[in-house]
Amino acid sequence: MSAGLQRQPRLLTIEGGEGAGKSTVLRALRDALEAEGFEVVCTREPGGTPLAERIRALLLDPSHEPAAPETELLLMFAARAQHVREVVLPALQRGAWVVSDRFTDSSYAYQGAARGLDPAFIAELERRVVGIEPGLTLLLDLGVAHGRERTRGRDLLGGSSPDRIERESDEFFESVRAGFLQRAAQHPQRIRVLDASPDANQVAASALAALATYREARA
Amino acid sequence: MSAGLQRQPRLLTIEGGEGAGKSTVLRALRDALEAEGFEVVCTREPGGTPLAERIRALLLDPSHEPAAPETELLLMFAARAQHVREVVLPALQRGAWVVSDRFTDSSYAYQGAARGLDPAFIAELERRVVGIEPGLTLLLDLGVAHGRERTRGRDLLGGSSPDRIERESDEFFESVRAGFLQRAAQHPQRIRVLDASPDANQVAASALAALATYREARA
Repeated sequence: MSAGLQRQPRLLTIEGGEGAGKSTVLRALRDALEAEGFEVVCTREPGGTPLAERIRALLLDPSHEPAAPETELLLMFAARAQHVREVVLPALQRGAWVVSDRFTDSSYAYQGAARGLDPAFIAELERRVVGIEPGLTLLLDLGVAHGRERTRGRDLLGGSSPDRIERESDEFFESVRAGFLQRAAQHPQRIRVLDASPDANQVAASALAALATYREARA
Repeated sequence: MSAGLQRQPRLLTIEGGEGAGKSTVLRALRDALEAEGFEVVCTREPGGTPLAERIRALLLDPSHEPAAPETELLLMFAARAQHVREVVLPALQRGAWVVSDRFTDSSYAYQGAARGLDPAFIAELERRVVGIEPGLTLLLDLGVAHGRERTRGRDLLGGSSPDRIERESDEFFESVRAGFLQRAAQHPQRIRVLDASPDANQVAASALAALATYREARA
């Protein structure tokens, strides 16, 4: 457990780069928990509340000048502060499970490892405005070239133009991946690394197995 | 001088509550410096760049859920990080004067004193993402009731509906005022308190006198 953070056993987070299959895993976790009768709140970052989604739109919109790394970091934590208070904590307090597509680990990977901001500053923001950490984090690890292939396929199907993050270089995404793996090495109890290169159903099966192991260990 | 901050002699900031006459003072300072042939960049916070102005709009828009105090603080510093890097520092580096309607002191007054957030956290954000402080800050001090009267007159003339900050209680604005006066007491060398109760032209004359004294002391 990290100093100053309250571990939340029913908060599950899914991390990983673009094209790693986070959405499929999120649905699988939700379906499994709902099948047992639990309330499950599925959410995402940046976003999850009307204000936080507007912050997300600012972050991804390529029409204004690029955000400085510090600006990007503070916008991410502004959205997270809102999301935690409006959505995550109220759900946990009423006994629901919360499954979030991205959470604080993403800031260490994207704004820390890839943008070069001091992880001690990110930890200070985490302690000051987040205050909680997930019980279990599933890191969907995938090679950068493989992830690019998958998002390219998705873009061709959906026809949407790439957002500000998707336009970053391969070098940027290599740093993101290394940043996630470093987090996993620092938090081996909380973060489970899953190989995301098989097809989505196989990755979802690994995720369900990791959830089962986690719950057995706690029982 | 505050620890870890670089004093910028040509950065002038104007602080104070609603209706204190900041715009008139800003124009007076600009005109006086331009008359001597200086380049003067007039700007404001939150805002000053396209992205920072979009963050300002989020902060003031009453249509989404209220921002948590921590969210508000981080949005303010996100906008400030962008403003400092895109506008303030480039202008100072080419030798221009910069006159800003609000700067970091406003975060201590609004998000610190009035919203109750820890000033040590605000100082950490200031050190990490701002890094500079003004050479001279003019604090236009005005009683809350008097400020309300003036903004009410302005709203009647302009017909605009009050934004999210303008809708706050008198108690909130009393705390803002006390927060500014406390900052002035802590930074007596940098912050000059001006009585903002006379008419705008008189306040502008006091501001010009304060600027002259500041420049003489530096000469």
